[in-house]
Amino acid sequence: MVMGRPGRSVEVTTVQEWREGAVHQKLDYLVAEEPLEIRVNGNPLSVTMRTPGNDLELAAGFLLTEGIIREREQIAHLAHATPEAGRPKNVVEVTLKDDAEFDSEGLKRNFFAASSCGICGKASIEAVRVRGIKAPNPAFRVDSEVLCRIPETLRAAQPVFGKTGGLHGAALFSAVGELIAVREDVGRHNAVDKVIGWTLLNPGTSLKDCLMLVSGRAGFEIVQKALVAGLPMAASVSAPSSLAVQLARQFRQTLVGFLRGSRFVVYAGEERLSLTNSAVGVP
Amino acid sequence: MVMGRPGRSVEVTTVQEWREGAVHQKLDYLVAEEPLEIRVNGNPLSVTMRTPGNDLELAAGFLLTEGIIREREQIAHLAHATPEAGRPKNVVEVTLKDDAEFDSEGLKRNFFAASSCGICGKASIEAVRVRGIKAPNPAFRVDSEVLCRIPETLRAAQPVFGKTGGLHGAALFSAVGELIAVREDVGRHNAVDKVIGWTLLNPGTSLKDCLMLVSGRAGFEIVQKALVAGLPMAASVSAPSSLAVQLARQFRQTLVGFLRGSRFVVYAGEERLSLTNSAVGVP
Repeated sequence: MVMGRPGRSVEVTTVQEWREGAVHQKLDYLVAEEPLEIRVNGNPLSVTMRTPGNDLELAAGFLLTEGIIREREQIAHLAHATPEAGRPKNVVEVTLKDDAEFDSEGLKRNFFAASSCGICGKASIEAVRVRGIKAPNPAFRVDSEVLCRIPETLRAAQPVFGKTGGLHGAALFSAVGELIAVREDVGRHNAVDKVIGWTLLNPGTSLKDCLMLVSGRAGFEIVQKALVAGLPMAASVSAPSSLAVQLARQFRQTLVGFLRGSRFVVYAGEERLSLTNSAVGVP
Repeated sequence: MVMGRPGRSVEVTTVQEWREGAVHQKLDYLVAEEPLEIRVNGNPLSVTMRTPGNDLELAAGFLLTEGIIREREQIAHLAHATPEAGRPKNVVEVTLKDDAEFDSEGLKRNFFAASSCGICGKASIEAVRVRGIKAPNPAFRVDSEVLCRIPETLRAAQPVFGKTGGLHGAALFSAVGELIAVREDVGRHNAVDKVIGWTLLNPGTSLKDCLMLVSGRAGFEIVQKALVAGLPMAASVSAPSSLAVQLARQFRQTLVGFLRGSRFVVYAGEERLSLTNSAVGVP
């Protein structure tokens, strides 16, 4: 019953497999899950259950997608808290430069202020708008055949998922379908924050020239994170929610769902997609 | 581009389907997602993105699974806030009886206190223990053949999922596989809270004699909610996380994953399962 640790993102343990009326003991891989606390300027900001690894990317991405920073340069210091002997590194400390004007209580007040007209989907979208978020890059274009190829590229690049079946993936691709970065996590939001945070910590990739693919569903918060980070296109192999579609349409972000095989559904921003073949679409 | 509202849990909208080099317009169903604010004794407690419907169950279940109440009788009043004209009912107000001793700041302090030894998985489990949660019903038993039948029962009872592909389901079953209640939501946690909340608002079902099946992955928070509610068994069609397995083992809760066809994997509490056939298991 003791769990080994072949790597921080996977744990191995003994389980019972019941199959066709018989029971077998076997070793099984589990996706690792542990809490991570993000502290900003000495104060706890959030605790998230995440898969250990790429913690600094996760913290940096979270700060960007939650609107706490706008660019890498606002971070003065970013590191794990010094762990005590034998304790896992589950705290990331961030110090912001003075001009970042961090105010955690203000964040909470803003949320409730934006929804004071009556909490509803419209107010949630309005809360994004009042933060000054603008429509992402209108010049970004992707060919439909390129789009259809990227799920397979993501699957091939997700080493842990195949072992555990328990991880969400998020990946950035260029307009011609090149895989730029991929991250996995037990939490869908964390995978998104990690891959976006990677671009903050590894300058050279501009999010306004990328599309993001997520392995699961695309709810409001996923699309919001992509939008706040400046991504012109978000794609999912599964379904978006109603509020995610409304948000993407209001901000002219391209939102694609059910990207499987040679088929996908475009929910918003279809002007960024072009047909590979000369087949004429039925309007 | 206007969205209709055939029901509160589904919205219908026009989308573009791209398939085999051609584009078609069609109507598509989207799972509805809107924020819900839960207010306790006049103070905002939480805002969650949820699928509208069964909001009172969601609020009651949330209060139970987050340890704010222990039983239905601690709720003095539970209702939607009176909505203004034309505004959706997205606020639920709860008044607790005096003996419920609600203290939202205390909740936060407790969390950080429990993890002050260094935030880690062990501390997260310890935080459950210090709340007085005990091992669930040791007498609960389920036959392996009964267990293998319940995913199909859940699928047949999920009307919205078939339309949208975007919902998580959670269902309660008796020890002989009878479906007791099923709820769906865009958020996995909400589906769990709704179905558990249903038992609070409809007395007659004892959670200590039920098992819960969830349609997606079983992470720490899902298993924690099941445990706090007193469920002796949680099953999932997909993978659990490492911390979910550790939690279930420590509290002797039965945790089943990859429940598909005639096969499943038992991660904890195998003593509550019995083989249908007389086939002898390999120890």
